[in-house]
Amino acid sequence: MPKLILVRHGQSEWNEKNLFTGWVDVRLSSVGEKEAARAGELLKESGLKPDILFTSKLTRAIQTANIALDKADRLFIPVVRSWRLNERHYGALQGKDKAATLAQYGAEQFQTWRRSYDVPPPPIEDSSEYSQFGDERYKDIDPNVLPKTESLALVIDRLLPYWQDTIAKELLEGKTVMIAAHGNSLRALVKHLDNISDKDIAGLNIPTGIPLVYELDENLKPTKPSYYLDPEAAAAGAAAVAAQGQKK
Amino acid sequence: MPKLILVRHGQSEWNEKNLFTGWVDVRLSSVGEKEAARAGELLKESGLKPDILFTSKLTRAIQTANIALDKADRLFIPVVRSWRLNERHYGALQGKDKAATLAQYGAEQFQTWRRSYDVPPPPIEDSSEYSQFGDERYKDIDPNVLPKTESLALVIDRLLPYWQDTIAKELLEGKTVMIAAHGNSLRALVKHLDNISDKDIAGLNIPTGIPLVYELDENLKPTKPSYYLDPEAAAAGAAAVAAQGQKK
Repeated sequence: MPKLILVRHGQSEWNEKNLFTGWVDVRLSSVGEKEAARAGELLKESGLKPDILFTSKLTRAIQTANIALDKADRLFIPVVRSWRLNERHYGALQGKDKAATLAQYGAEQFQTWRRSYDVPPPPIEDSSEYSQFGDERYKDIDPNVLPKTESLALVIDRLLPYWQDTIAKELLEGKTVMIAAHGNSLRALVKHLDNISDKDIAGLNIPTGIPLVYELDENLKPTKPSYYLDPEAAAAGAAAVAAQGQKK
Repeated sequence: MPKLILVRHGQSEWNEKNLFTGWVDVRLSSVGEKEAARAGELLKESGLKPDILFTSKLTRAIQTANIALDKADRLFIPVVRSWRLNERHYGALQGKDKAATLAQYGAEQFQTWRRSYDVPPPPIEDSSEYSQFGDERYKDIDPNVLPKTESLALVIDRLLPYWQDTIAKELLEGKTVMIAAHGNSLRALVKHLDNISDKDIAGLNIPTGIPLVYELDENLKPTKPSYYLDPEAAAAGAAAVAAQGQKK
């Protein structure tokens, strides 16, 4: 039966600095590299053998996958990258300090941008140094489809077609599929898989670097609750993500 | 105009031990990892920007590509892997010590196996611990096509169809294509590109970890001689490869 393994990238250089990142292409921090190695060790211990890897177009997710698959002796599997697995585009907040944004706009607006289902931040200007306007990695895509800001609802809108057409195809062949991606693109996928309501998804946090496993039936429905390969570390990690933005 | 960048993987754990490797899936040594990083730095300094990466199915080539593209800030490009870029299958010699093989069979037989154009070593037994019989990474391929030994001529036979159908397509779109592969699969490709005779190819050695660049016309013919991104290091590296097997 098909299996799906979701891995959220580890700490990036900007997570460390508490900046909104979104589509800005920052690298893993050394902590993030260790988290990725741990993800690979967990994979190897679990006996799960990914047959194919999907990643976003962002370096931090690709680094995570490369490090983890190296540890798991699975570097040889096919790899497919898509912008549709990218992190939520954080609009004009990209590059801004989270604590400063909280202080400037207040807790209510801040939480709306971070956790509301369908309210995106203001769009980023093409001229911003943190815009992806003109970025060659997106040059083969209709420019009209590239976001300048996104809510979680908009992430779902652009991710689900890729899930349905491309990732689902591999799962329906009975493969074990690994996806290395981001907090919000993975929340979008989990919302779909677990049929979580627009309201309840706000409370769902995915920890970094701990593989989350779905066992699926022939209709790609979970046959049992999804599980983390290290449940204790996952619970601690999810709590840490929930506390983000409260940092001074 | 299309550009082609060939990168031979750096030192592996078995190069270090002076064993015949072929299709045995050994990892890079720490020296090999440094060579890969240097390849990435050379790429970055050169201003060449690979648009797509091809690798073999072997870990040491994939590690080399991952490290080099990370250094060159090009991890996001599409990746395609094929067994047709694998190292020459060394048959029954796989896993054997090069110096011991030289002592056992004599210099003439040894050189014939290493450098003759069309004399393969004896085939490997399926039961050998160094056989790839049953290796899951080749499970999607007609079992009749998987080699049990190869000469350079046989490498060319299995590599050229992939070059013609798949790699050439990307080059004909004007892309810069990077291939991370092996001493003999790259010699096979260089023989084809530079129209080297069956006799003269014996004297051609490709150094590890130094990108070799071809600038091609619309017929995929070189518009000028190919060049290494670090010519001095390449000359020293090629001499070191030529001396291999003479080690005691």
